[in-house]
Amino acid sequence: MTYTEIGYEVSEGIATITLNRPQQLNAFTHVMRGELIGAFDAAEADDAVRAVIVTGAGRAFCAGADLSAGEDTFNGENNDVRAKAHRELGEVDGVARDGGGTVALRVAAMRKPVIGAFNGAAVGVGVTMTLPMDIRIAAESAKFGFVFTRRGILPEAASSWFLPRVVGISQAMEWAATGRLFDSAEALSGRLVSRVVADDELIPTARSICREIAENTSGVSVAVARQLMWGMLSASSPWEAHRLDSKGINVLGAGADAAEGIGSFLAKRPPEFPLRVSQDYPEFMPEWPARPEGV
Amino acid sequence: MTYTEIGYEVSEGIATITLNRPQQLNAFTHVMRGELIGAFDAAEADDAVRAVIVTGAGRAFCAGADLSAGEDTFNGENNDVRAKAHRELGEVDGVARDGGGTVALRVAAMRKPVIGAFNGAAVGVGVTMTLPMDIRIAAESAKFGFVFTRRGILPEAASSWFLPRVVGISQAMEWAATGRLFDSAEALSGRLVSRVVADDELIPTARSICREIAENTSGVSVAVARQLMWGMLSASSPWEAHRLDSKGINVLGAGADAAEGIGSFLAKRPPEFPLRVSQDYPEFMPEWPARPEGV
Amino acid sequence: MTYTEIGYEVSEGIATITLNRPQQLNAFTHVMRGELIGAFDAAEADDAVRAVIVTGAGRAFCAGADLSAGEDTFNGENNDVRAKAHRELGEVDGVARDGGGTVALRVAAMRKPVIGAFNGAAVGVGVTMTLPMDIRIAAESAKFGFVFTRRGILPEAASSWFLPRVVGISQAMEWAATGRLFDSAEALSGRLVSRVVADDELIPTARSICREIAENTSGVSVAVARQLMWGMLSASSPWEAHRLDSKGINVLGAGADAAEGIGSFLAKRPPEFPLRVSQDYPEFMPEWPARPEGV
Repeated sequence: MTYTEIGYEVSEGIATITLNRPQQLNAFTHVMRGELIGAFDAAEADDAVRAVIVTGAGRAFCAGADLSAGEDTFNGENNDVRAKAHRELGEVDGVARDGGGTVALRVAAMRKPVIGAFNGAAVGVGVTMTLPMDIRIAAESAKFGFVFTRRGILPEAASSWFLPRVVGISQAMEWAATGRLFDSAEALSGRLVSRVVADDELIPTARSICREIAENTSGVSVAVARQLMWGMLSASSPWEAHRLDSKGINVLGAGADAAEGIGSFLAKRPPEFPLRVSQDYPEFMPEWPARPEGV
Repeated sequence: MTYTEIGYEVSEGIATITLNRPQQLNAFTHVMRGELIGAFDAAEADDAVRAVIVTGAGRAFCAGADLSAGEDTFNGENNDVRAKAHRELGEVDGVARDGGGTVALRVAAMRKPVIGAFNGAAVGVGVTMTLPMDIRIAAESAKFGFVFTRRGILPEAASSWFLPRVVGISQAMEWAATGRLFDSAEALSGRLVSRVVADDELIPTARSICREIAENTSGVSVAVARQLMWGMLSASSPWEAHRLDSKGINVLGAGADAAEGIGSFLAKRPPEFPLRVSQDYPEFMPEWPARPEGV
Repeated sequence: MTYTEIGYEVSEGIATITLNRPQQLNAFTHVMRGELIGAFDAAEADDAVRAVIVTGAGRAFCAGADLSAGEDTFNGENNDVRAKAHRELGEVDGVARDGGGTVALRVAAMRKPVIGAFNGAAVGVGVTMTLPMDIRIAAESAKFGFVFTRRGILPEAASSWFLPRVVGISQAMEWAATGRLFDSAEALSGRLVSRVVADDELIPTARSICREIAENTSGVSVAVARQLMWGMLSASSPWEAHRLDSKGINVLGAGADAAEGIGSFLAKRPPEFPLRVSQDYPEFMPEWPARPEGV
């Protein structure tokens, strides 16, 4: 895949996806949307990738939807770009799928951890698409806004599902109802991000977390843990987790990574896990997020 | 509606509901319950109202259920007030509906943001009825208590559903199991309230948040955002959000508030949103909280 | 029941369960698992017990699964201990039940509050089995680790269900994906524990919380509150809470503990609640966690 509005680069077991329209503050377009899906697919398929970082080029992370179509930006009937998106994304319930949601659902389905590294303003879809990521960290100068209510639309990218689960319903509602911009300190105290670092420490910090994962853990174990944890947000009972745990101990416990994990621990040496996510992700795991009937 | 145990006043786009039995520390009665429902109905129906503040007259917010019936306060068989409530509230599963729950479920169904402003003690139903509100702020001198286990009853007003979602299950259980009184600092660290201010800054702070909403946002967008965010707490999958997002972008994106929201933003002028919640709340939105079969 | 790998002691209305293999850092075995279930059963059945503390003997809380079977520790086919566990625990979906999960589900079903008091390292199942406890507090020197991904297995004991509900999905994923050890300060800021105290204050603090419960609250009310709050994490709508609240006010409101709770409060004297959990736990309450069809 050739990327025109994002960058995609792999090194040290880390795929870095860089939103790359710096002159437009990385405003989100239909093209960028498709390239993001492609990049997540590439990272998923590449066993050399153990974790993914998403960040922005220039001074913004993502300023939100590109508003160059003006007042008709979100108007499907008067907007060629949206008509094209409608054709390409398909429908749910007879209407065009929300583009931001296609990215969010793709992130949710990832078998590798994803880290959002906010280098600057993350507004609208620029922040909602990061909610299914596992870890979010911010540069001091980052800013945030769930501005949908100020634009006359609604919080999208399945953020009504994700945001209350990430930051709690009260914080979610305060940000959604006011639509206000807020700084990295408020993002930290509100638990949208887990840490705030000096601007020039952002990427080194993100990479450090990724290396901690890559050097110490089994990729298959992390994939299973990720899908279990997010998936259980949808589960009605801890018995559902118990069922999958039991299968998982049965399968992974007899596998080569368990032998290596315990063996290396007892020998006090770094592990070298043999299993690969592309081939060894266990069959018993359900797909998450499961698409409900009729959607 | 004439109010005898609460005050109801509208100004600057803000409805203020004041629990008003100061000599009884605003203890909750069947009459107050009905007037609260009436006031929320009035605020909902009035397009001049963009947000609702609930606070208390005098030195308390609400001391909990009025205990003037003594040991029989919660005893349906020996208590005329409860018998009257039974007749008026109807039943679920063959028993009288919990009165506090009727308020909580009404608040949950609101299409306008509700702010609880704790001016003093909020105990029992005095605090549980505020849990479906979007934002809670406290005066320094406020106190709180989920005292049900000390009275030999149980946490009501659907608080077993709301409290763990607002503050997390561990904090919820510590407050419920001990039934202890706690101060505004503990309420803040435990995330029951989002900020604590000097006593004389309480109402100005609440009004400031409401004005921020009224001056900058679309009422229909806020209504949809509110019902989506709370409603998705019940949803099994982010696909359910994606379905509603897609419909919402389709409807609201082609609407007059989206045009005004984007137009005013691009023109750097304050917005004047034309849509009205009473008429323009979109039909695709499901009712929340949905009443399950058989309840 | 005779205990060989745990201690069990009751005083002041508090049952204390002590993981007791100090030479092995209280590593979790199949025997310890069965004794924990037995001890929770005993605490449940004994009306003299109002709350339960779980802690560890010596310098660790629990170092995780006993790894003395080496690389085959979790390999059901090559491991006599696991084969025995398989026979004794039964199956879900045709595979042996996860042992840690049997403890977690037993804790979840408790009708008495459970307090985890971390005196030292709590790693793997040593921490996951504590997630369904109501309150967790830590000594300063405690350490924690969700190390499953470093051992090539997966987070068990239904922790994929419990951990995101206790600490939020983002914190859960950071700890699960990295598998790293962390100290009591990080456990506090991440909300895994509600307070950190000096090492020699740990048990006194835990006992103080338990006495606060025992001296002030109705055991039946606490039992109902506990099962309601945890149970409602599984409920699709606050209407489900409203249904149970209404039944509960009807039953408990007419009961002897309500009369005593209100009477003692109005008389400003300590309560003496007559009801007993073993006999008076109300019939309308559903069992939680409900075992889904087919598990």
